[in-house]
Amino acid sequence: MANTYETDVVVIGAGPVGLFSVFECGMLGMSCHVIDSLESIGGQCMALYPEKPIYDIPAHPSILAGNLIENLVEQIEPFNPIYHLNQQAASVTSKGEDWHVTTSAGHEITAKAVIIAAGAGAFGPNKPPLENLADFEGSSVFYMVRKRDDFKGKKIVIAGGGDSAVDWAVSLSDIAEKIYVVHRRDKFRAAPETVRQMHEIAENSDVLEVLTPYQLRALHGENGQLNAVEIADFDGETQKLDASVLLSFFGLASKIGPIEDWGLELQQKHIVTDPTTAETNQSGIYAAGDIAVYPNKLKLILTGFSEAAMAAHAIHPRVFPGQELHFEYSTTKGVP
Amino acid sequence: MANTYETDVVVIGAGPVGLFSVFECGMLGMSCHVIDSLESIGGQCMALYPEKPIYDIPAHPSILAGNLIENLVEQIEPFNPIYHLNQQAASVTSKGEDWHVTTSAGHEITAKAVIIAAGAGAFGPNKPPLENLADFEGSSVFYMVRKRDDFKGKKIVIAGGGDSAVDWAVSLSDIAEKIYVVHRRDKFRAAPETVRQMHEIAENSDVLEVLTPYQLRALHGENGQLNAVEIADFDGETQKLDASVLLSFFGLASKIGPIEDWGLELQQKHIVTDPTTAETNQSGIYAAGDIAVYPNKLKLILTGFSEAAMAAHAIHPRVFPGQELHFEYSTTKGVP
Repeated sequence: MANTYETDVVVIGAGPVGLFSVFECGMLGMSCHVIDSLESIGGQCMALYPEKPIYDIPAHPSILAGNLIENLVEQIEPFNPIYHLNQQAASVTSKGEDWHVTTSAGHEITAKAVIIAAGAGAFGPNKPPLENLADFEGSSVFYMVRKRDDFKGKKIVIAGGGDSAVDWAVSLSDIAEKIYVVHRRDKFRAAPETVRQMHEIAENSDVLEVLTPYQLRALHGENGQLNAVEIADFDGETQKLDASVLLSFFGLASKIGPIEDWGLELQQKHIVTDPTTAETNQSGIYAAGDIAVYPNKLKLILTGFSEAAMAAHAIHPRVFPGQELHFEYSTTKGVP
Repeated sequence: MANTYETDVVVIGAGPVGLFSVFECGMLGMSCHVIDSLESIGGQCMALYPEKPIYDIPAHPSILAGNLIENLVEQIEPFNPIYHLNQQAASVTSKGEDWHVTTSAGHEITAKAVIIAAGAGAFGPNKPPLENLADFEGSSVFYMVRKRDDFKGKKIVIAGGGDSAVDWAVSLSDIAEKIYVVHRRDKFRAAPETVRQMHEIAENSDVLEVLTPYQLRALHGENGQLNAVEIADFDGETQKLDASVLLSFFGLASKIGPIEDWGLELQQKHIVTDPTTAETNQSGIYAAGDIAVYPNKLKLILTGFSEAAMAAHAIHPRVFPGQELHFEYSTTKGVP
């Protein structure tokens, strides 16, 4: 059912920077609604690489992307954000001094300000052009590894030549029964050390086989259950690989989608912001994280966190006009 | 013994932002020397409030200041920074395209760049004007609580009316034998909720007594061991409090010291920087954290971390001229 809401700030994107925007707004007494096109919280960190370690979050020598999200969710819990998941922010239009946001599920939210923390925009995997692909998606064909253990004892075709393909080939070789890595070139575009490891495993054990140059040709199976992946070389010679799982790693396509139509100044699909306030050319709309751009911009999660803090501080006078913001340290003030 | 060194980057300040500067430089292949006036690593976090929780570090719902430093030290360990502690950066002068830094201990370091992460500058406690104060400092008179347990079962005078005085009065009331809070006004300048707690404890138990308006008058004891603190009201009436410890919380005085003489553009004792590169008016000298200022600057540890990342990226072409910086995610690249 479509509802109408009023809040202080609408945050578009529930990735790490969107979540931390809720924290920074909350610390300044402002409440948030959060919209995300994915069905769960955490953006790419949760959807694509929850078990990958991140090394450059300050004071976390190493943290899995999934744990980063869990920590942020715990950190913002006191501020009770309202989530609108599995739906895009469809329109953002001005309404007097406020902003009116509608979602693709029909919800309408009026807010004093909007923070766009949409990363690379709504995104999804590039899919191989196979006729009956949709029959196997979610049951036998996957575009990401959510839980490594799901692939224990399985016969797996990994398709692709980038970091995801090579990393998971190496990582899953411990627990899979068989892994075929299928790539259309001999050379892999991945971290050289990991490529070396993959070839070493292929040479020294039967569990891993690297098949190049090959392309995916067809999927065989029934009722969503794959039993073979057919591949072809460039002379059209084919072979069938005995496998129950296809991991397809052909990268991601992202599109900023409806954001293009909100009257924001863009630069190569990124939103131009003021580097000290995170404000866009539209007064009251802010952008933080990978989608924001200004000279010398660094696409680091940390940078997005810092921009979220700037945005919240810049928004404060809109929500509490005339009320001076006493800058206090969190050690003194604590969390509400 | 005074030595001469060459390195990529000299970092001035071993607080959280200085330490994280080492990390960001290290991730880009640059080595660092770190100078700090304190005798140990960690800046104010470690020297003043190691057991205070901080709530606004991203993905740390709550972290003690001391643990923040420990995590950062672990995070930069792979990059083997060289520390020069217990000494100030005395001079910074240009030497061709490099910078030449001398320390108050006589060391000389030549570097491609300098990052000043000196917080509020070299700092120390404001001390009460008591004749024989120095006789008791470090043994019976303290300006900070390093370890709460050191005060177990003690009779303590806490002097001051700010957050430190009130916070520690409440916190130590669990474990001390007796606490006298001495303040020269009736009103405390601290978080209202904590002030309320303090008065509640004073009303309901004998462990805590609030004495206002009173000032410190004299210290009594011998061989560094305090046995009484004499206080006086504004009519000159005195009384002696039976106590073996004085915790003196009259705030901090900080001074940016020699930094004023390095030809940097300053604004009210802060260093003016470019908000997207952290560079100062001197090419090759950068500033990050609380000492850096630009329009809308936020004095958050997080903001300093982000500025450290900017500085490291801006320095990279000085250390590796002509070498393109391939921007990689830490998940892909890992830590060297």
